[in-house]
Amino acid sequence: MSSIANDCIFCKIVKGEIPSSKLLEDNEFLAFLDIKPINKGHVLIIPKAHCRNLLDFPKSEETNLIEFVKKVAMAVMKATSADGFNLGMNNGEAAGQIVEHAHFHIIPRFKDDKLGSWPHKEYSSKEEAEEMQNKIIGFLR
Amino acid sequence: MSSIANDCIFCKIVKGEIPSSKLLEDNEFLAFLDIKPINKGHVLIIPKAHCRNLLDFPKSEETNLIEFVKKVAMAVMKATSADGFNLGMNNGEAAGQIVEHAHFHIIPRFKDDKLGSWPHKEYSSKEEAEEMQNKIIGFLR
Repeated sequence: MSSIANDCIFCKIVKGEIPSSKLLEDNEFLAFLDIKPINKGHVLIIPKAHCRNLLDFPKSEETNLIEFVKKVAMAVMKATSADGFNLGMNNGEAAGQIVEHAHFHIIPRFKDDKLGSWPHKEYSSKEEAEEMQNKIIGFLR
Repeated sequence: MSSIANDCIFCKIVKGEIPSSKLLEDNEFLAFLDIKPINKGHVLIIPKAHCRNLLDFPKSEETNLIEFVKKVAMAVMKATSADGFNLGMNNGEAAGQIVEHAHFHIIPRFKDDKLGSWPHKEYSSKEEAEEMQNKIIGFLR
């Protein structure tokens, strides 16, 4: 399996064939500015090896990804004087993924930025929740 | 520093003082059903040790958190027959964080679930993007 997909825009960014505003990189991961930010300072973090989403995400050999993300998030918070931030990863078109190379979003948030949130549902009964619990557990075995 | 916060609902779930629909746990992390799901099958993953958000997140000693999240996400996808999923973490009240114990959301998504997405902005010039890039890099040093 090749770790580079020829028609992938993020693979081209990794190879330097397309310019990007790089922020931090190591052997496995790259952080750069999203050019269409939800809020300015919005950063993308990608594995350098091509994969589609979290389900085929490579097992990290060197980098503790959470520590990498944390380091970038701290710098984004300071640089933007944000009040908070969202870490997000859209997996699949139905989840809003546009570029099919796995990527994490770090989005700085501000008290009055008026970005909405999704409505919550409820399980209709304790039994319905238990059924879902058991179904998921069944696939974890 | 205590790893348990006495008034924290998620710490109470870890200790078993409040019931929850547990799915998977190891020494460091716990996955359980969100009782107010965005879509049914919505799961929360928390570190067992109390921390507020990603900025004070403990450096993992044993668990590869990404592998843990991936395992749970795969089971959620199968159990719900979802078309995709969002991985999310709201850090700070301004980012929609309600419970002040760090947690990741895994939200199964369906082609027609009509959950919206946030609008994108643009940098007004190449210089504005460069300024942001340099500002963030400054805090990464």
